[in-house]
Amino acid sequence: MKKKGFVDLKFAKVDIDRQARRGFSEAIYCENKSKEQIAKILSQFIKYNQKVIFLTRLDREKFLYLKSKFPFLQYNETARFGFLKKNKIKNKNREVLVLSAGTIDIPVAEEAVLTLEIMGNKVRKVYDVGVAGTHRILNHLEFLRKANVIVVVAGMEAALASLVSGLVKAPVIAVPTSCGYGANFKGLSALLTMINSCSPGIAVVNIDNGFGAGYIASLINNR
Amino acid sequence: MKKKGFVDLKFAKVDIDRQARRGFSEAIYCENKSKEQIAKILSQFIKYNQKVIFLTRLDREKFLYLKSKFPFLQYNETARFGFLKKNKIKNKNREVLVLSAGTIDIPVAEEAVLTLEIMGNKVRKVYDVGVAGTHRILNHLEFLRKANVIVVVAGMEAALASLVSGLVKAPVIAVPTSCGYGANFKGLSALLTMINSCSPGIAVVNIDNGFGAGYIASLINNR
Amino acid sequence: MKKKGFVDLKFAKVDIDRQARRGFSEAIYCENKSKEQIAKILSQFIKYNQKVIFLTRLDREKFLYLKSKFPFLQYNETARFGFLKKNKIKNKNREVLVLSAGTIDIPVAEEAVLTLEIMGNKVRKVYDVGVAGTHRILNHLEFLRKANVIVVVAGMEAALASLVSGLVKAPVIAVPTSCGYGANFKGLSALLTMINSCSPGIAVVNIDNGFGAGYIASLINNR
Amino acid sequence: MKKKGFVDLKFAKVDIDRQARRGFSEAIYCENKSKEQIAKILSQFIKYNQKVIFLTRLDREKFLYLKSKFPFLQYNETARFGFLKKNKIKNKNREVLVLSAGTIDIPVAEEAVLTLEIMGNKVRKVYDVGVAGTHRILNHLEFLRKANVIVVVAGMEAALASLVSGLVKAPVIAVPTSCGYGANFKGLSALLTMINSCSPGIAVVNIDNGFGAGYIASLINNR
Amino acid sequence: MKKKGFVDLKFAKVDIDRQARRGFSEAIYCENKSKEQIAKILSQFIKYNQKVIFLTRLDREKFLYLKSKFPFLQYNETARFGFLKKNKIKNKNREVLVLSAGTIDIPVAEEAVLTLEIMGNKVRKVYDVGVAGTHRILNHLEFLRKANVIVVVAGMEAALASLVSGLVKAPVIAVPTSCGYGANFKGLSALLTMINSCSPGIAVVNIDNGFGAGYIASLINNR
Amino acid sequence: MKKKGFVDLKFAKVDIDRQARRGFSEAIYCENKSKEQIAKILSQFIKYNQKVIFLTRLDREKFLYLKSKFPFLQYNETARFGFLKKNKIKNKNREVLVLSAGTIDIPVAEEAVLTLEIMGNKVRKVYDVGVAGTHRILNHLEFLRKANVIVVVAGMEAALASLVSGLVKAPVIAVPTSCGYGANFKGLSALLTMINSCSPGIAVVNIDNGFGAGYIASLINNR
Amino acid sequence: MKKKGFVDLKFAKVDIDRQARRGFSEAIYCENKSKEQIAKILSQFIKYNQKVIFLTRLDREKFLYLKSKFPFLQYNETARFGFLKKNKIKNKNREVLVLSAGTIDIPVAEEAVLTLEIMGNKVRKVYDVGVAGTHRILNHLEFLRKANVIVVVAGMEAALASLVSGLVKAPVIAVPTSCGYGANFKGLSALLTMINSCSPGIAVVNIDNGFGAGYIASLINNR
Amino acid sequence: MKKKGFVDLKFAKVDIDRQARRGFSEAIYCENKSKEQIAKILSQFIKYNQKVIFLTRLDREKFLYLKSKFPFLQYNETARFGFLKKNKIKNKNREVLVLSAGTIDIPVAEEAVLTLEIMGNKVRKVYDVGVAGTHRILNHLEFLRKANVIVVVAGMEAALASLVSGLVKAPVIAVPTSCGYGANFKGLSALLTMINSCSPGIAVVNIDNGFGAGYIASLINNR
Repeated sequence: MKKKGFVDLKFAKVDIDRQARRGFSEAIYCENKSKEQIAKILSQFIKYNQKVIFLTRLDREKFLYLKSKFPFLQYNETARFGFLKKNKIKNKNREVLVLSAGTIDIPVAEEAVLTLEIMGNKVRKVYDVGVAGTHRILNHLEFLRKANVIVVVAGMEAALASLVSGLVKAPVIAVPTSCGYGANFKGLSALLTMINSCSPGIAVVNIDNGFGAGYIASLINNR
Repeated sequence: MKKKGFVDLKFAKVDIDRQARRGFSEAIYCENKSKEQIAKILSQFIKYNQKVIFLTRLDREKFLYLKSKFPFLQYNETARFGFLKKNKIKNKNREVLVLSAGTIDIPVAEEAVLTLEIMGNKVRKVYDVGVAGTHRILNHLEFLRKANVIVVVAGMEAALASLVSGLVKAPVIAVPTSCGYGANFKGLSALLTMINSCSPGIAVVNIDNGFGAGYIASLINNR
Repeated sequence: MKKKGFVDLKFAKVDIDRQARRGFSEAIYCENKSKEQIAKILSQFIKYNQKVIFLTRLDREKFLYLKSKFPFLQYNETARFGFLKKNKIKNKNREVLVLSAGTIDIPVAEEAVLTLEIMGNKVRKVYDVGVAGTHRILNHLEFLRKANVIVVVAGMEAALASLVSGLVKAPVIAVPTSCGYGANFKGLSALLTMINSCSPGIAVVNIDNGFGAGYIASLINNR
Repeated sequence: MKKKGFVDLKFAKVDIDRQARRGFSEAIYCENKSKEQIAKILSQFIKYNQKVIFLTRLDREKFLYLKSKFPFLQYNETARFGFLKKNKIKNKNREVLVLSAGTIDIPVAEEAVLTLEIMGNKVRKVYDVGVAGTHRILNHLEFLRKANVIVVVAGMEAALASLVSGLVKAPVIAVPTSCGYGANFKGLSALLTMINSCSPGIAVVNIDNGFGAGYIASLINNR
Repeated sequence: MKKKGFVDLKFAKVDIDRQARRGFSEAIYCENKSKEQIAKILSQFIKYNQKVIFLTRLDREKFLYLKSKFPFLQYNETARFGFLKKNKIKNKNREVLVLSAGTIDIPVAEEAVLTLEIMGNKVRKVYDVGVAGTHRILNHLEFLRKANVIVVVAGMEAALASLVSGLVKAPVIAVPTSCGYGANFKGLSALLTMINSCSPGIAVVNIDNGFGAGYIASLINNR
Repeated sequence: MKKKGFVDLKFAKVDIDRQARRGFSEAIYCENKSKEQIAKILSQFIKYNQKVIFLTRLDREKFLYLKSKFPFLQYNETARFGFLKKNKIKNKNREVLVLSAGTIDIPVAEEAVLTLEIMGNKVRKVYDVGVAGTHRILNHLEFLRKANVIVVVAGMEAALASLVSGLVKAPVIAVPTSCGYGANFKGLSALLTMINSCSPGIAVVNIDNGFGAGYIASLINNR
Repeated sequence: MKKKGFVDLKFAKVDIDRQARRGFSEAIYCENKSKEQIAKILSQFIKYNQKVIFLTRLDREKFLYLKSKFPFLQYNETARFGFLKKNKIKNKNREVLVLSAGTIDIPVAEEAVLTLEIMGNKVRKVYDVGVAGTHRILNHLEFLRKANVIVVVAGMEAALASLVSGLVKAPVIAVPTSCGYGANFKGLSALLTMINSCSPGIAVVNIDNGFGAGYIASLINNR
Repeated sequence: MKKKGFVDLKFAKVDIDRQARRGFSEAIYCENKSKEQIAKILSQFIKYNQKVIFLTRLDREKFLYLKSKFPFLQYNETARFGFLKKNKIKNKNREVLVLSAGTIDIPVAEEAVLTLEIMGNKVRKVYDVGVAGTHRILNHLEFLRKANVIVVVAGMEAALASLVSGLVKAPVIAVPTSCGYGANFKGLSALLTMINSCSPGIAVVNIDNGFGAGYIASLINNR
């Protein structure tokens, strides 16, 4: 079965080849899976020695069930993120900076932070530095310039990504969030802002996709 | 006929009461009107002593035709704007600041500037100060703080309005422009950015509507 | 820490410089913050002597928690708005008129009214004067003409802003609401109506954003 | 062939039964048909004695070609409308009122007017009475109240339909137009406004569809 | 107060002039009003002798409260509609036909039926005759041809309106519904289908707006 | 009554002619029908000997009610699908292959599988073979090439349909699902991907419409 | 080079394996390719003995250039389609029926017809049978019932697909067209109608994609 | 003037500080600027010794004008890109791979290639390897695995990015293109596909933004 590169559980084909092919194992998106399904997939990961485990959108109740079966499982409730362990930091001189525009963007930012830490990156986080008071971000200019990669998490008008990108040499990964109200259309407004940025050096991931942002930021940080 | 408050040209009911009611006469939107129609409406304005004339979206060819009939008519080709004269500046201490994020937003910004000048406002303009290089706008902080009202004209991700609003006490009128490409959807992206601003003190007019921005900015400046 | 102009609570960077820079302190958007977070931010505001407090989208339960800690806190349940005190009215001759098109738009209108009152404006409110029965608004023509600034709150087809603007010299701040059903698309229809108004003198804030409307109306009223 | 109720020209199945079934013959939408195709269809209409002919979106060039073959053909260039003759007015006491909000909406309004006249209705037209100056429409209150059916043609924010409907007992057929600019999205804004009207008694046809509005207004007028 | 044509309850301006002006009193949209508010408005209607009462989107719980205060109040739960009495049928020869495409469209269709009956129309209803089995509607051809006005209520692809219109001389009022799933986008798909109908003689009201459809159908039926 | 081809239950016109006309009886979409309504329709189907019964979107509670009245009724909870019996497989050499991109797409895929089995098709299912690990699908190349018809169920970016179509001679029926988050807009993203496929040989059904996919796949398989 | 299954022209990788893999060679979409590019690709197709050639969206000017180099090339100008030869009809008892709702949909329908004929299918075409006059389609009931597969090409409200599907046992491939005006949004309206059809047995291809419809219809016809 | 970090040409504030701040000078977006404006900005760049020049969306006519003034200016017509010189390759072991899904995506891909080369990267390009024939991309697996960064340019359903990302360890920058037709909505479909990718390791830039993709890919390649 290993030859095929996956384990066939019928309801899932667990991609045990991914670690070899891509460097990291498959993430388990938990939102629409039952706790039993998650446990079965997780067992395979452990059996086939997939070293890094990402359990995204994992709610507390499912976590408690899994914890009873996999006692080493760790959990961050803000980010709704489960994992077994964090890799050792590979390169202490390469810091990834994770920014959030507002307090309400923190859960998405934390998902990016955890993903980065699990993948072995040194991370610094600076939250609530949106453009309504630019002195907050300008006060952290030193960190901006020192960062090897920057992740910007922002909702509403999401102007922070452009502002930050204009000040630095590092690539910026932008994460629109669905936070806000009125004509934000569940994050579409922030997505359009970020994708239309006039400042080169920005690329965008899906709305609220802190995991995806952390993942590609880690790939970049380890070039 | 004057009693009714309008002159009925059949294809148009010229609102000669508007100057009394609103302080300024009706603007003539020229884009879908024939040059003969514009001339007929303009004649009525002059006949009924409407003192301020706005001819918006007036192309050069139609202007030349009108100029031959109304020799005092003036024209700004960048803004595609015709007018008879500018009012005297009512209050030199109240300055309206018009900002454009990019060079390509200038035609819309100029439309706002002209509207403001015709209505008797002191105007300062600072162009091409978008967020890709914030030192350009921060270098003009003195003007930002001194302004009584600020008009921000920006396309693409349109982050300038939020940035500016966060620095000042004055109200900001934001004008999204259709400039840009890709997923800007003819200005929709900029409109959503501005309307979702996290910084209070901003209100928005229609895409590319420099006239509307100048008009309300003038009303505000003369409170 | 004060030198930086903000207090760093990690989950929030409280902008204590905003009062100096913008005239008023930061509003606390309460919807996605825990009651403990709100209390911590509020403490900083009080500590650094921010005189005006806006707590928007504050539900009753969170208010009761805060009230037990900050006994002077006041609350308007219709507008879901918390505040410490209303400023004294600065200029009794300058009245801001807040209109609602329907009864169901009142919560948003009340948010605008409270914001204006807290910032020290004289406010008059006239509710349920939509265009289905124009005699209701025409009967208040005197108030329309006397107002220094007008806020129009309307959902569904939101025609009231254009109608009002056509009758007055004052600037109109339009607030689309998400009230209505069918093809209103959570306020998008009302937003498009207002942004496309044929009547100059109108600028628009975000859907249901009564606070933003009141805020800029106050800035305008105090030019 | 007549038994089937249509003539099969291969590229078109001419519906010669429609006059019997629906009271009026099929309209020929000319925009994407060649002048030869239109001529062939028209010949069949004449051969099978279809008494009323509507040629919509007919440009001048195609008209001149058709005129050379069908000398009785008449044409209105503003409405881009061809027809053979107008029916006699069936009932002089029943007047259909066609309103346009602006001058630029006139071509669509004229299409409605012609359709109504060809179908034998008495029509009154009042143009350029949009809500930016309500005295223009209020001055025509007598016509509003006297009308048996009202067609309102409006673009941009299209508030006129709601205003008119609130004043009368007659049903209102609303026609959004694609006139305007910025966030009007080719008439979508006007369509949403009209469909979301808070005033009962309004139904809406497609953007710029003056023919459709005139057609159903005639059906209503002849109930 | 009566002179003004409305009663000012502050939270509502009850339009007691509407019966004189439009023939029928204002409908009370109950969804976002408290039961106490509805009762206060209803009292005014009764006090000022508004003969026809429409209470739309009235849920059972609010009805029971109102019933205890206004014992004559009647209620249709399917349509969530309250009313005092149905007018006498004015003209038995003029029948309005209300069609629904599916079983799930019936609540909206019933709202139209009740509105028509309250306004004094003879109504016939034929439900579940969508285009997936055309023999169901073709079997009712006699009723289609006899109807003076037709209301078509349909969701999903909403093809029924075009099909029916192509068979009759009567005007068709089309009501898109939000019924369906997948890419129907809460009725937008049905709305676009109906507004783009290739068959003249159709006009459209808002999604799920059975009241609006019944209202204008009654106006048409009584021309 | 049978002559008409339907049974009129007033709230539904049961199409008992459909089996003769189309080969299979009408499916009952259960989501917005009461359990009593479903039971009444089902009784007619049985009375008029409609051999194949589809009850889609049937939740457990309604099923239990129906089971008590129709003891032969079977149920699949994953697919929320009720049925009386599966037809015998008509042709064992013609296999329909149903693929799902992810585990969370399985309920929709199961709806397609059941529909196919009930209609008498041999079905093979292969789940969780999305493009993030192509070896999973390439490992099943033999099944891909052997299939007579292929159904591809996928959400998010939905790239699987194009990939599969490029490898086979069989027609592909693509079902977008609403699974995913962020900018997937309830399946719109997947729908657009599939409809824009660069690979000919694909046609698309509605979002989450496993029944529709299975139905047309069965028609194709039995050509 | 052949081993790889494609020829690398740098600007194109000509897929010469496709005939073996999929049964038919790659279609050349000509709209954004230069005539020289098309000629180079075509040469490779001929060199590697790809027997069936599809040149879609080929304008007359490019065709004439190609004709001078490949004298056997044939062309249908209505469909803007180039090809070398039509395959022999494989099975005369299996007829594909191609319907167009209107005359203006014929170019797309012809693209489907040619694709089918080139791939060796017997095709019957019936044009201009839209739902505004259903007797036109009902008159062809015999052809509907006899067809093995049906392609329905329709724009505007696109109701024809549902109507036809409700009458037959054959699968229906629906092609929305961008024909129409107003709120059809370049075919989006027709696409939504077809994808939301209440009648099972329909699957949809891209807007104006006659080639794609013909291609899958041929695959189905040859099951 | 240099102290400020920009040169004020009034119509543009040339950001001569950007090279120091961000490593590269500002790109000149030429589409909406006059050739005289471009020349003036270019002069400043040269005067202030900005070493790398990007002139994007530069049409041939404007290039010829600039060439006469700046003889060293080079030009790539496919990419509509002007530049002075390419930097030396900094690191020959780090290769950026640029893929295009189709031939029609090449202009956007070339813009990315040129940007990368000018910034001193080693680039390999492989064009026309879309998912309709996966053997074309699988045949280049060696290049995929060797690449340090990958840029994927694709329109229509844009599935290539997900497929490629699933096979490699390198980060993928995805560029949606507006190529295609029907429901691609000028690249929106491709943008949604890419942003919704189920494969982590992808970030997205604006539609047709080859420059932005090349720019961030270069930043990543030089971490």
